Amino acid sequence: MTPIAIGIDIGGTNTKYGIVDREGNVLAKHSISTRQFESVEEYVLSVSNAVKALIADLGQEVEVSGIGIGAPNANYFTGKIEYAPNLRWKGIIPLADLFEAQFKAKVTLTNDANAAAIGEMMYGAAKGMKNFIMITLGTGVGSGFVVNGDLIYGHDGFAGEFGHVCAVRGGRLCTCGRRGCVETYAAARGLVLTVQEELAASDGASPMRHILPENLTPKDIFEAAEAGDPIAHRAFDYTGKILGEALANVVAITSPQAIFLFGGVARAGKWILEPTKRYMEADLLGIFKNKVELIPSKLPGSEAAILGASALVWKEKENIS
Amino acid sequence: MTPIAIGIDIGGTNTKYGIVDREGNVLAKHSISTRQFESVEEYVLSVSNAVKALIADLGQEVEVSGIGIGAPNANYFTGKIEYAPNLRWKGIIPLADLFEAQFKAKVTLTNDANAAAIGEMMYGAAKGMKNFIMITLGTGVGSGFVVNGDLIYGHDGFAGEFGHVCAVRGGRLCTCGRRGCVETYAAARGLVLTVQEELAASDGASPMRHILPENLTPKDIFEAAEAGDPIAHRAFDYTGKILGEALANVVAITSPQAIFLFGGVARAGKWILEPTKRYMEADLLGIFKNKVELIPSKLPGSEAAILGASALVWKEKENIS
Repeated sequence: MTPIAIGIDIGGTNTKYGIVDREGNVLAKHSISTRQFESVEEYVLSVSNAVKALIADLGQEVEVSGIGIGAPNANYFTGKIEYAPNLRWKGIIPLADLFEAQFKAKVTLTNDANAAAIGEMMYGAAKGMKNFIMITLGTGVGSGFVVNGDLIYGHDGFAGEFGHVCAVRGGRLCTCGRRGCVETYAAARGLVLTVQEELAASDGASPMRHILPENLTPKDIFEAAEAGDPIAHRAFDYTGKILGEALANVVAITSPQAIFLFGGVARAGKWILEPTKRYMEADLLGIFKNKVELIPSKLPGSEAAILGASALVWKEKENIS
Repeated sequence: MTPIAIGIDIGGTNTKYGIVDREGNVLAKHSISTRQFESVEEYVLSVSNAVKALIADLGQEVEVSGIGIGAPNANYFTGKIEYAPNLRWKGIIPLADLFEAQFKAKVTLTNDANAAAIGEMMYGAAKGMKNFIMITLGTGVGSGFVVNGDLIYGHDGFAGEFGHVCAVRGGRLCTCGRRGCVETYAAARGLVLTVQEELAASDGASPMRHILPENLTPKDIFEAAEAGDPIAHRAFDYTGKILGEALANVVAITSPQAIFLFGGVARAGKWILEPTKRYMEADLLGIFKNKVELIPSKLPGSEAAILGASALVWKEKENIS
């Protein structure tokens, strides 16, 4: 029987799930709307049945090694989701227990950035690395810090909130209620805000002047940059400055071998990597200069979330044995 | 035979060394001038002979379990001191090898803040803690980050440079050549600079007006604060603001159970603890509020450096077995 891991990525809108083998091959995958379920019990039952159907359809004998789940506000230690603002289920949700009852297999739960970090370590470009940082630049900014080969979960299971490191004292208002968080500059909406500031500060022509700010995406800004739009170039430069300088500070704490960038904003490639790297290097303490790789995640975008979640299963098994 | 550890704390001016048992009793200790030795070989020979004499004078049979050394710019992985600006011996010094040749026992080398962190974990208030931060506020600002029960050494052995996290963009010039490092505000000289700024900004009476800035110490500022000097109070408040806000950022990364303050500036007690705690709490992300203890180190000041260095020995032995 082939050992397989079930990977489940819970987003506010959709849940992606899949069956993954130890080598990181996604044997089957699917997705389901998260929002349609008013009760978490219904949700877990529907997802579990869908996963069981996927397994049955595989046409081979498999052994479920465990279930890995990436979810917002997920606590590795308790197996619970705690007060996730983007989910319909309020309060503290014992998600690991609910899935464990369905599968009689060990469930490992953590946030999506931590799952991506473990995915990169198991299947991606961080193979063999003991010290690295995964930064996810999407709707928010998440992070997973790997030290001595293990994730930093911290005392309470909530470590790794790089998105809420203060980058600019008294800066942009964040959804967390504080000001100047990295997230308000380096997440998708932060990049869009910077474009709006740049558009307001000049009268240069730009294709982005003809897109409603609420409709503007990192992809539009990437395309403008590719087409030579100086406003897009300046917006990426400023985003890279904020991000790079904030990364220089955390390099001083954990001294990683590499930093991986993942998510929508990271898909802008060199436009975001180059300035981030340049500002980070300029700001690093001497002993860290020219030592830290800054590279895009090597997990395939469409399957990355499932791969990350499934990797939690192998990581747990291999730590224990 | 009683197992003992040799603890050696190498400072730019003096080297403290002692014999410590597993319970943290300092059986014997002494110190020697570091600066008098032009060659590191002479230095190691003199310290080793002095330590051997201390052991002989103990009047009991002991077994040397190992040698722990806290030193500036010390690399745990290589056992070398690398380009320490405050030592006479330049370049890369293979200190662990040199001492190993003298004692035929395992030598563990790291910086003084990491040694203090392990000391706190072995003998002090961090017993049983798996996630905490040690901050040393002395001539410089050092730090040791413990995560999952182990120090973060990072990819290259130089992790934990909290003193060189940028706290104020474009702020005070640091000895590292960069600007705004935590150290330029929260080390002894930083506190003195803040007092000078406060003295310049008001014409209020203060006993500190009659002390040459080069002679002003954290102890003088503490005494002024105790005597009710508002300039000293404001200086501690500002120092606490810079330190507390910088700590809020690293709490978001490692989510520690506690943060320990150690060293000359920390000896100002409530005058530094209270504002640091207040500004840190005000700036913490919601999920971390009212969770992180901020407390003085419980290692006895006069023996702390030797205890920290010696604790490295037990930590190594207990990790291996």
